[in-house]
Amino acid sequence: MVLDSVIYWAGLVAVAAFAITAVLAVASSKVPLIAAIVFAIITAIGGGTIRDVILDVPVFWRDDTNYIWIAIIGGLAAFVLDTIFTRRIVNRLLLYVDGLGAALFGILGTQKVWEMEFGLPLAPIILGMLTAIGGGLIRDVLASRPNLLMSSELYAIPVLLGCTLYVALQAFIPEYATFNMLICFALTFGMRAAAIYWKLSVPEWLTTTRRNS
Amino acid sequence: MVLDSVIYWAGLVAVAAFAITAVLAVASSKVPLIAAIVFAIITAIGGGTIRDVILDVPVFWRDDTNYIWIAIIGGLAAFVLDTIFTRRIVNRLLLYVDGLGAALFGILGTQKVWEMEFGLPLAPIILGMLTAIGGGLIRDVLASRPNLLMSSELYAIPVLLGCTLYVALQAFIPEYATFNMLICFALTFGMRAAAIYWKLSVPEWLTTTRRNS
Amino acid sequence: MVLDSVIYWAGLVAVAAFAITAVLAVASSKVPLIAAIVFAIITAIGGGTIRDVILDVPVFWRDDTNYIWIAIIGGLAAFVLDTIFTRRIVNRLLLYVDGLGAALFGILGTQKVWEMEFGLPLAPIILGMLTAIGGGLIRDVLASRPNLLMSSELYAIPVLLGCTLYVALQAFIPEYATFNMLICFALTFGMRAAAIYWKLSVPEWLTTTRRNS
Repeated sequence: MVLDSVIYWAGLVAVAAFAITAVLAVASSKVPLIAAIVFAIITAIGGGTIRDVILDVPVFWRDDTNYIWIAIIGGLAAFVLDTIFTRRIVNRLLLYVDGLGAALFGILGTQKVWEMEFGLPLAPIILGMLTAIGGGLIRDVLASRPNLLMSSELYAIPVLLGCTLYVALQAFIPEYATFNMLICFALTFGMRAAAIYWKLSVPEWLTTTRRNS
Repeated sequence: MVLDSVIYWAGLVAVAAFAITAVLAVASSKVPLIAAIVFAIITAIGGGTIRDVILDVPVFWRDDTNYIWIAIIGGLAAFVLDTIFTRRIVNRLLLYVDGLGAALFGILGTQKVWEMEFGLPLAPIILGMLTAIGGGLIRDVLASRPNLLMSSELYAIPVLLGCTLYVALQAFIPEYATFNMLICFALTFGMRAAAIYWKLSVPEWLTTTRRNS
Repeated sequence: MVLDSVIYWAGLVAVAAFAITAVLAVASSKVPLIAAIVFAIITAIGGGTIRDVILDVPVFWRDDTNYIWIAIIGGLAAFVLDTIFTRRIVNRLLLYVDGLGAALFGILGTQKVWEMEFGLPLAPIILGMLTAIGGGLIRDVLASRPNLLMSSELYAIPVLLGCTLYVALQAFIPEYATFNMLICFALTFGMRAAAIYWKLSVPEWLTTTRRNS
């Protein structure tokens, strides 16, 4: 099917973006090339790997190592061409492609868990979020960086809303599965893109320090 | 059986306590609500999830998502009602319920591994401890907090002793399985409660800096 | 077979070295004995455990808990006899045995994945490296120490080269499986030993700060 093919290729582009942003994220510290590549791989496939291990299905890269190849190539490219990727315009483009990846992986992850009827209705949402942000969390822990959960950036919330909506739509109008997936993906990416464009962040009253301020 | 029912409900109460203490633990940093809920879920089900993945059995929340619902509700409650939960008397009560949860999850985890005859006699002890403290460790790593392994608080040691005793009792008097479980749970919780009440900590000679002091 | 026996015993010696160096690594912080033992166990079996979980095979210590016993004994020994193990000559010996362990676990890990024909050709290399350094990474994260990925020490690179060479040799001359394993092990350990002896580190141009210097 054409859509499957589009999704597959979009996934590979997103993996490349994850890998590149992973390397750029740690580039200000002194990091050996090998560690940069490890971070690229972990960021790109870490979340989906934990999801598959919890689902007890073969990890998604077992029968298609393209994901890892692309992560390695993306990481190498970021290492060699960092002066290009840190240029303001390219960097912003990368942010959007990274957001597209988070939206895509989140919805596809939720879809995979939903179709297995695994721990409905919560598990698809939780594991969808894990797919989208799990790899980045591991990278940040290994690189001793503040991770995105602790930041006020609007990154996890769009994914949460998109994955939750997908589960709701599948529960009520499962006959429109493709539509449901596309609309949730568009919504998730749209929210993330808006957050990047207008530099939106989590409002103060939705953080634990709301009373101190 | 009545006991099974009591254990199940005690487990849900303990999950709520884990979730609440998780949110309170990170509340002094500025943490978005969504991250607080994620920490609540990870603390409540993280250790048992890793145990089940290592055992290669379905994760315990696949067929009963109540654990996750309770963790979410507990986390939300802690976020909204933090001024109540940080009151001295409520906070102390929480500490005891959290200790009860650690004792319960530790012994139940050990029991699960023992009954599978998996890696006897060490694996039941190690995976029992993992069940009790694994989720809290992941939370502390993600929240960049000092974790309880590195602290002198008496938290892991009662669990270790209780799980070890359970394995010993099951090896020698397996016909008293229920008694063994209850006595080990009571002992573990008793030690932890004593540590909370008298503010006990690991003695200096049982730490790596004993010679420097 | 004699070789299998030699490899098995060398593995146990290496586990002991991993456990001892794990405890020494955290000994300068004030760490309770129980945490030191947990670190010893994690360092010794953590990487191989994650590998086996990803491969969806029983964890290697399920049917042979000797690995865990040795890790516990090694950790206890390091705790009690730390003044011996920190002596310059003993400490250097430990470094070499630790390097031998990393080389051995890396190559054996790659071999296990290769023989399962899992995710060829990349997965054997990645999971071989994970076997060798994964446990140490988890320990460093839990102990809030800078981890070896972020350091300029030549530790991961010899393992990467050795595992990659093994995959290449197995692809082209699979009929010399034993020879391939031995030569790759020798090469990996040789590089690591040279790095220890001559205090080699990753050259500046292979780190992300090459342009700033």
